[in-house]
Amino acid sequence: MKIKINRPFDLHVHLRDGKMLERMVKHTSAHFGHALVMPNTTKPILTAEDAQEYKREICRIAALENLPHFTPLMTIKLVASTTPEIVRQASKAGVIAGKLYPEGVTTNSADGVSNFESLYPVFEAMQECDMVLCLHGEVPGVFVLDREAAFLKTLIDISRAFPNLRIVLEHVTTEEAVETVRLLPYNVSATITVHHLFTTLDDVIGGMLRPHLFCKPVAKTEGDRKALIGAAIGDSMRFFLGTDSAPHLVGKKECSSGCAGVFTAPVAMACLAEIFEQYGALERLQGFTSTFGRVFYRLPPGPGTLELVKEPWVVPAEYDGVVPFRAGETLPWKVL
Amino acid sequence: MKIKINRPFDLHVHLRDGKMLERMVKHTSAHFGHALVMPNTTKPILTAEDAQEYKREICRIAALENLPHFTPLMTIKLVASTTPEIVRQASKAGVIAGKLYPEGVTTNSADGVSNFESLYPVFEAMQECDMVLCLHGEVPGVFVLDREAAFLKTLIDISRAFPNLRIVLEHVTTEEAVETVRLLPYNVSATITVHHLFTTLDDVIGGMLRPHLFCKPVAKTEGDRKALIGAAIGDSMRFFLGTDSAPHLVGKKECSSGCAGVFTAPVAMACLAEIFEQYGALERLQGFTSTFGRVFYRLPPGPGTLELVKEPWVVPAEYDGVVPFRAGETLPWKVL
Repeated sequence: MKIKINRPFDLHVHLRDGKMLERMVKHTSAHFGHALVMPNTTKPILTAEDAQEYKREICRIAALENLPHFTPLMTIKLVASTTPEIVRQASKAGVIAGKLYPEGVTTNSADGVSNFESLYPVFEAMQECDMVLCLHGEVPGVFVLDREAAFLKTLIDISRAFPNLRIVLEHVTTEEAVETVRLLPYNVSATITVHHLFTTLDDVIGGMLRPHLFCKPVAKTEGDRKALIGAAIGDSMRFFLGTDSAPHLVGKKECSSGCAGVFTAPVAMACLAEIFEQYGALERLQGFTSTFGRVFYRLPPGPGTLELVKEPWVVPAEYDGVVPFRAGETLPWKVL
Repeated sequence: MKIKINRPFDLHVHLRDGKMLERMVKHTSAHFGHALVMPNTTKPILTAEDAQEYKREICRIAALENLPHFTPLMTIKLVASTTPEIVRQASKAGVIAGKLYPEGVTTNSADGVSNFESLYPVFEAMQECDMVLCLHGEVPGVFVLDREAAFLKTLIDISRAFPNLRIVLEHVTTEEAVETVRLLPYNVSATITVHHLFTTLDDVIGGMLRPHLFCKPVAKTEGDRKALIGAAIGDSMRFFLGTDSAPHLVGKKECSSGCAGVFTAPVAMACLAEIFEQYGALERLQGFTSTFGRVFYRLPPGPGTLELVKEPWVVPAEYDGVVPFRAGETLPWKVL
């Protein structure tokens, strides 16, 4: 059995910087036509210039690797010092989204925001420029499993204050977040990762401790996982793929103070084919991975297609020093 | 400032076997006069003979190390094949408790029990012999944070079916478990660990991943932690110390599939003095760590005392290849 879909779009990926960047451009571009590149690099992407430089570097690597069909879509990180002018310049330079991390919620977010209302002039400028607001929706300091739910009021407040601002609640992990997005107007969407469709907190800490499944937001209950699957395979166009593929070298995961992030780029599409087939929804795989995100971001369909074949393969133990999601497991679907 | 208490009693400790045993006898006997030694060694302690052999080995090490005041108290592991006769023989051989692990809930519990009622003849024999039943109170397969609460019905059932069987719910982690024990008759008690008085799930997975704080049952919420502190410093004699000090070599913790267990033996008493002082309850430290457990287990006060002094010291990064609880931190109280 084979399926062919329009080349997919990863609406949330960490390509990192330095040596890691080269490896990650290769992994993501192997399967995805476009990717929205997160700005929380070691030196964050804060301005039009930063984004342009970062994009040039990504495109340089893609050209070297002979990956002409891969287009990185750029973001800037919204921090306390971001101004409406920075937003306008970034928008002119082709930056399509601004990413907001509450302070301290995940990798490289120590410079995150603690007062959202202080950023309202920035949101106003984003609304005018038609730049998308991407939210890491967690409230720090709250009990770890309640952080996403605690953020939903802020999401509702921002969406009401800026009815024409397109907002993406990133990597939703709870039934409550899914239901909240469903009830909000069409300017609000959500991304869903691959690993949150497969794992619950039980997989991370219920048996042995599994650092390679540890991410933020942490995976929640089986009921939450089922709600995410329902949103991913359902017919709402407001839920689409953002892998949040987040590589960390093995030594940064298997240590006394491990980094958050699951590296899914090389296995994401195979895993999605598996779970969509399991729920009898293979014909919706293109919508979730390729169409819906492009519609929300108002992008034309990208060139090219991706073919998957039902043929077992074993996920390598590591790629370039990074342990991938489902390392060592046999997956039923394979990207051709 | 100094305090002197009767030598404390650790009602729940893992001394392990092989090379680790020598190190652990040294650490526990340095501060504790008696310790109830858990039977989930690599080759489990299942019978009178196993327990006698294990005890001889522990006493041999204690003698070599010149630790004449340390007395190990022995347990057997209750498994599907345990019979009333095994219990009677163990009791005659001086084994004072039987430990029951539900199947697969923690380290070396793959041979644990899945059908509790099938063990009722064993509990009957324990009741007759006056052997204590120690329960790892978690139901496997349930969402990891709900496993202890899900076990409470079994605790109630067993305590009603065997009103003269002394039962210890080990290492309680939830307010619900504390309240359940309070409402049950006096034949039911609970142990509380040191690490559960200090940590919540936020410490394990709320920031970076902290494998050295990962244990079973996993630490729960701040409200649960406060309930444990209330039970530990309170005037109920049915809550007493069982450290569940559970050493794993650093490579078994900092890896892709990490073991559960926190190594607290060398810091337990210092940490307890700190938290009891913080809550103005230093005068109750002796009750929680020395008196109440001995009363429940019907043991005479052991010989000797332990002195603690308020003098800062830094917890070593590791002891014999095992990272201790609060490694690298400065503690205000020190065992003399």
